[in-house]
Amino acid sequence: MSHEVRFSANKFWMNWQSMGRAQELDALMHAGFRKWPAAFSTDYMKTSELAPLEKWAAELRQLDAQTLIVIGIGGSSLGGIALKALIDAHSDRLIFWEGPHPSKMQKIAQIAEQKQTAVLVVSKSGTTLETRANLSLFRQFFPGVPEYFVTSEPAAIKDLGANSKNTFLIPKDLGGRFSIVSPVGMMPAMFVDYNVKAFLTAFDEANAEWEISIPVAENVAKQTAIHFYNLFAARFTGVAFWVYAADLVDWGRWLVQLWAESLGKKPHIAALPMIVQGPEDQHSLLQYFMEASNRHLHCFVHTQSYGSRDSLISSEIRGDFADKSMSQILNAQMKSIESALSAKERPVAEYMLSDLSETEMARWFCFWMHVVSYLGYLWEINPFDQPGVEAGKIICKKLLRGENVEEAVQPVFDLR
Amino acid sequence: MSHEVRFSANKFWMNWQSMGRAQELDALMHAGFRKWPAAFSTDYMKTSELAPLEKWAAELRQLDAQTLIVIGIGGSSLGGIALKALIDAHSDRLIFWEGPHPSKMQKIAQIAEQKQTAVLVVSKSGTTLETRANLSLFRQFFPGVPEYFVTSEPAAIKDLGANSKNTFLIPKDLGGRFSIVSPVGMMPAMFVDYNVKAFLTAFDEANAEWEISIPVAENVAKQTAIHFYNLFAARFTGVAFWVYAADLVDWGRWLVQLWAESLGKKPHIAALPMIVQGPEDQHSLLQYFMEASNRHLHCFVHTQSYGSRDSLISSEIRGDFADKSMSQILNAQMKSIESALSAKERPVAEYMLSDLSETEMARWFCFWMHVVSYLGYLWEINPFDQPGVEAGKIICKKLLRGENVEEAVQPVFDLR
Repeated sequence: MSHEVRFSANKFWMNWQSMGRAQELDALMHAGFRKWPAAFSTDYMKTSELAPLEKWAAELRQLDAQTLIVIGIGGSSLGGIALKALIDAHSDRLIFWEGPHPSKMQKIAQIAEQKQTAVLVVSKSGTTLETRANLSLFRQFFPGVPEYFVTSEPAAIKDLGANSKNTFLIPKDLGGRFSIVSPVGMMPAMFVDYNVKAFLTAFDEANAEWEISIPVAENVAKQTAIHFYNLFAARFTGVAFWVYAADLVDWGRWLVQLWAESLGKKPHIAALPMIVQGPEDQHSLLQYFMEASNRHLHCFVHTQSYGSRDSLISSEIRGDFADKSMSQILNAQMKSIESALSAKERPVAEYMLSDLSETEMARWFCFWMHVVSYLGYLWEINPFDQPGVEAGKIICKKLLRGENVEEAVQPVFDLR
Repeated sequence: MSHEVRFSANKFWMNWQSMGRAQELDALMHAGFRKWPAAFSTDYMKTSELAPLEKWAAELRQLDAQTLIVIGIGGSSLGGIALKALIDAHSDRLIFWEGPHPSKMQKIAQIAEQKQTAVLVVSKSGTTLETRANLSLFRQFFPGVPEYFVTSEPAAIKDLGANSKNTFLIPKDLGGRFSIVSPVGMMPAMFVDYNVKAFLTAFDEANAEWEISIPVAENVAKQTAIHFYNLFAARFTGVAFWVYAADLVDWGRWLVQLWAESLGKKPHIAALPMIVQGPEDQHSLLQYFMEASNRHLHCFVHTQSYGSRDSLISSEIRGDFADKSMSQILNAQMKSIESALSAKERPVAEYMLSDLSETEMARWFCFWMHVVSYLGYLWEINPFDQPGVEAGKIICKKLLRGENVEEAVQPVFDLR
């Protein structure tokens, strides 16, 4: 393989590279790092720490667990969901249960009635409303199912039955949205036979290439952050990640959380991330991006190879797709939209992965953790907190306790 | 039930109502309608036209078809997908196949190997690349499966084997993104026993309440369009639909297409729609919306009732959720985020559906078709075309034919 991920871009990225300021901006990144050190870059899980997880996986095999139900939300689910999409997208062996939705409860009940299940409860703080509510619901209907816990605060979930034998720890400084490289991401992946050792090894190597001490000229994560920094200093207010591999759409949800929660911190920051699905959204959002306000960066993501899952399409039916493979069609579609947007003076970039293997994906996750942190440093914000989510939690608590809360909205009209 | 959908809002919507200009704006809507008549408002399917579809459904029962594979993309899939989520979210009885993704092909093959299937090929133009490619793939691996077709151009799919017996027509003037009220939406729904008669009856009634001849003062669809028109004339550049019912997330994908493809037409229009999932994205996008740039309208959507699927959560586990139902928790979460955003001077509105029944949902789809068209008229654009998607199609054709196309992007660096 000549490369892993190849980054290409149109003139907007080129013009804005402005490496003249590279030293000044690198200093800014170092200053940010000193103020808000990147715990993910040191506290990620090492292969040497896998033994307890392997023991757990063996225990589940002995219990003959057919399905693992992961109860968790946000940083406690999105990394695992992204990996599941790559490993075992369509099966019910691994199920993530996020919000307390009645339709999801139906699905969970269906599975728990038919299969031998185990439950993995993931909550960094131990106090997550949705997670505790879902566990309570599950126990009502399916008592006695083996439970395991992942948390940074074992004391906070002692009341749930967490103890030193059934509980796995997330390093305290490792934020939820970075916790894919902890038991949070690795335990679900291990349950569906992902090669977590290869994943963590590749993460470790990638991290060494992109960490803070590597200067801009040799550090493509820093270079990428500078590109984004410059583009958002111009008139752009959002970034659309056009994901052409269906397997990567859930990686996109992970990235949106990483980006939005790490970077959405100051009124002058207008850089909303969104996922656009290729080719599906060519029939939806494309019209808007071609002809409405030009305020988005367009980053295309695809893979060169789907391995043995790819197929050639026969020429039985008339069409330009005949004798092409699915991946060739997806690529041609992606390239055509890149060209069409570029011709309309939109900033266009492309990330081409060589494949979706453990090694490639570990680098891909690691890359964005670094890029997002560096971009936060350039904007002189702390990329590792999320102070804006507290207000809602406090109001929700009051509402559930029946305390008086003024309604934010007043009735305007009924549709009938 | 005292109402169907209740619309509530905070001061931003109130202040901007500006009904003083109502007559002037109504005149603008009438002018738009004369130029670009709303075909969906006359050409939607009537209950009197259901007989051929009922005959088809009976035929599929006779064939003992266990799964219907719908091959279609964009307007040919999104309406059906939205209905499926309401009817039968987790089963494999109804499968939509949009882009030519290898992972989806795997899933389709799994099903076709295990079940008696039938195929519904949906393409308004008959020339859709993805749809023809997927059908070709399917035939290679699973020849002889019964096929049915839905199109506006039967001549264009004669080569696929479409004939007067197996083909159902979409009215020519009814755009793809409005075609849920045609065989496109009704045939898949009928296959999973949806009450399409109730749906079409309610659509018909709702349409009469909101069509162009009903003046602004009595027409909540026109009022809503005016609200949006005024808010987007201020500093806002996007609208976030916070969907708290998991069953409605696919309705959201439908709305995004309807909105983006109908309204994304001029450089001065900055009104990008997006779906935010509640409560999941409280752990993701919320931080951004609370503290970053204040440029979005926030529209919350939920239902008062999930019927028998709702459950009370016991008090076995300590927490504020104890003795509350799932819907009460979701509602408290939604209300708390409305309050938190409103306190930060964000425009907040709420649409509370009474339930997710056929009647309620038909009105809900109909409402947005009218709102989006009226908003297009106010912006003096044609809401019913999509000229911006052609350029990409032409380039894609060239690429697949091996013709020379200049690359839009140039390699910048490799990640290794």
